[in-house]
Amino acid sequence: MNQLSRQIQLLRYPNGLPSLADFTLAEVALPPLNEGEVEVSNQWLSVDPYMRGRMSLAKSYVPPFTLNSALDGGAIGTVIASRHPDFAIGDRVSSMQGWRDHFIAPAAALTRLPQSSLPPQRFLGALGMPGMTAWVGLHKIAKLQAGETVLVSAASGAVGTMVVQLAKLAGARVIGSTGSADKVAALEALGIDEVINYKTTQDLAGELARLAPEGIHVYFENVGGAMLEAALDHMVINGRIVMCGLIDQYNGAGQGGPNNLSQIIRKRLTMQGLIVFDHWQHYGDFLAEVTPAFEEGQLQANETVYQGLEQAPAAFIGLFEGRNTGKMLVKLD
Amino acid sequence: MNQLSRQIQLLRYPNGLPSLADFTLAEVALPPLNEGEVEVSNQWLSVDPYMRGRMSLAKSYVPPFTLNSALDGGAIGTVIASRHPDFAIGDRVSSMQGWRDHFIAPAAALTRLPQSSLPPQRFLGALGMPGMTAWVGLHKIAKLQAGETVLVSAASGAVGTMVVQLAKLAGARVIGSTGSADKVAALEALGIDEVINYKTTQDLAGELARLAPEGIHVYFENVGGAMLEAALDHMVINGRIVMCGLIDQYNGAGQGGPNNLSQIIRKRLTMQGLIVFDHWQHYGDFLAEVTPAFEEGQLQANETVYQGLEQAPAAFIGLFEGRNTGKMLVKLD
Repeated sequence: MNQLSRQIQLLRYPNGLPSLADFTLAEVALPPLNEGEVEVSNQWLSVDPYMRGRMSLAKSYVPPFTLNSALDGGAIGTVIASRHPDFAIGDRVSSMQGWRDHFIAPAAALTRLPQSSLPPQRFLGALGMPGMTAWVGLHKIAKLQAGETVLVSAASGAVGTMVVQLAKLAGARVIGSTGSADKVAALEALGIDEVINYKTTQDLAGELARLAPEGIHVYFENVGGAMLEAALDHMVINGRIVMCGLIDQYNGAGQGGPNNLSQIIRKRLTMQGLIVFDHWQHYGDFLAEVTPAFEEGQLQANETVYQGLEQAPAAFIGLFEGRNTGKMLVKLD
Repeated sequence: MNQLSRQIQLLRYPNGLPSLADFTLAEVALPPLNEGEVEVSNQWLSVDPYMRGRMSLAKSYVPPFTLNSALDGGAIGTVIASRHPDFAIGDRVSSMQGWRDHFIAPAAALTRLPQSSLPPQRFLGALGMPGMTAWVGLHKIAKLQAGETVLVSAASGAVGTMVVQLAKLAGARVIGSTGSADKVAALEALGIDEVINYKTTQDLAGELARLAPEGIHVYFENVGGAMLEAALDHMVINGRIVMCGLIDQYNGAGQGGPNNLSQIIRKRLTMQGLIVFDHWQHYGDFLAEVTPAFEEGQLQANETVYQGLEQAPAAFIGLFEGRNTGKMLVKLD
């Protein structure tokens, strides 16, 4: 008898904020293991905002998810059977075969986890795509210099917590925005210099003027909306804006663009879009630089963990409700 | 008896579109010519959109104009008296002492016009600040490559007509937008590939999709508003947007920002602000490269000339009413 794979499938393309009813949990029989393939049992699933873009037929940089089949997403698992010489039972691997507990794939779809004493899920978050995103944005795009002031929105998110810490490590002053007292506390524990709770701040522009009287050199944008408008007004001349996410707009509910784009001219700003996959050739450099900082305790990993495959849709929706601090993960039973 | 200077003064900071009543023509007695100073009679005045930014107390990259004194602006004149060894009577000079027929200034405020068989006013337009703006934007900011597609808004303006021609000279395909049939014809005479008359085009996005089915590599932005939104939707991956002007918004009447800034992320676009004065150290390189192209007839200069100092305010207001093709100039009697 074939093995079963429990998996989360998308039933329909959501309008606006996804709801639990857009997803279902299905059981699918796996085919036999062919020559060159590997069978993996997943332990950790990555839950990422960019997946919202695939839950739509609108043109994007990633193709839409297929309805009624397992959602793809980052995952960490263990090899349980192998018909490929590069992988042996017990090997820890990462793949894009998440949102399911169990899968068979060609060896080329798997990446062996780096040797490390760190917990394996670290390679989905702080040492995975979100951490790499923070590092590329600060160093490859914004070319951050020591002594500069960085502003990051969604500072308590998976990318944001790494922007905060990597910018501090690079000698910058860091201001973050977030949406709850708990998250403010979490950011303070990471050593951030200033935090804005945007939900309790009436006057974002005034607060930025107070916290960064000499202006912001680098704005790392994850949100859009009012914070982008306030940031534009407080950038220094020749400031850089890394456009990483506009989570305010992913579900169609965000406001229009900022009404002060003329600041880009007045201040000779550079605003550049970042898709981390474009820079994946530098992932080895990133790991070589950042892994030791974790091993030596200079950096901390923030993780929010939902337990069990059936919780993946709730974890995903939680991203847009601000329910995570740091990386949103699902741990499988 | 001292000489008189006839000059246009600003009476008040306009709200919205300036009106003739915001300006007055005054006569001011010039002081005696001191050692180190030069006396100049102006022949040509430059009329530029950026001056709107100085007609306001709002913070900008240039300080506000002082009320009840001569407006500053680019000018070309002839030395009529000199107490400085570097300038002799009859020398042609450019200065920022425009909007007046006659002035005295220290020698350091004057620049001798390059030797050239070209008409002197060319150094206010195609070979002056607007031409230099086009050249810096295409070559220093966007790093235009042969074979790429360039879109330029306000294509028939002083900067736009030079963007069109310099981009063609660099081997690009060029699409421009403008607002009248006459201007469409003027752009066709410059060798542009495609023109959009935005006033008669219902569906800008559809028109761009038709004219640039493979996308736009470089968008040279002079206007803002609906054209920026349509352009964002039609940029290629890794496209570059040169933010040069947002004339739609200078008088406070423009709409808000584009609602599709997420395209900057999806397409990894770079949007960069351009203030030409930052790049003035390259002005000699620009002249060396572009002057011969005029002398050899490869480039044409479009100019709209108002006659007489008293017409300067009407010429300025005309900029925002689309009354110019190419450089807006005032010729003094």
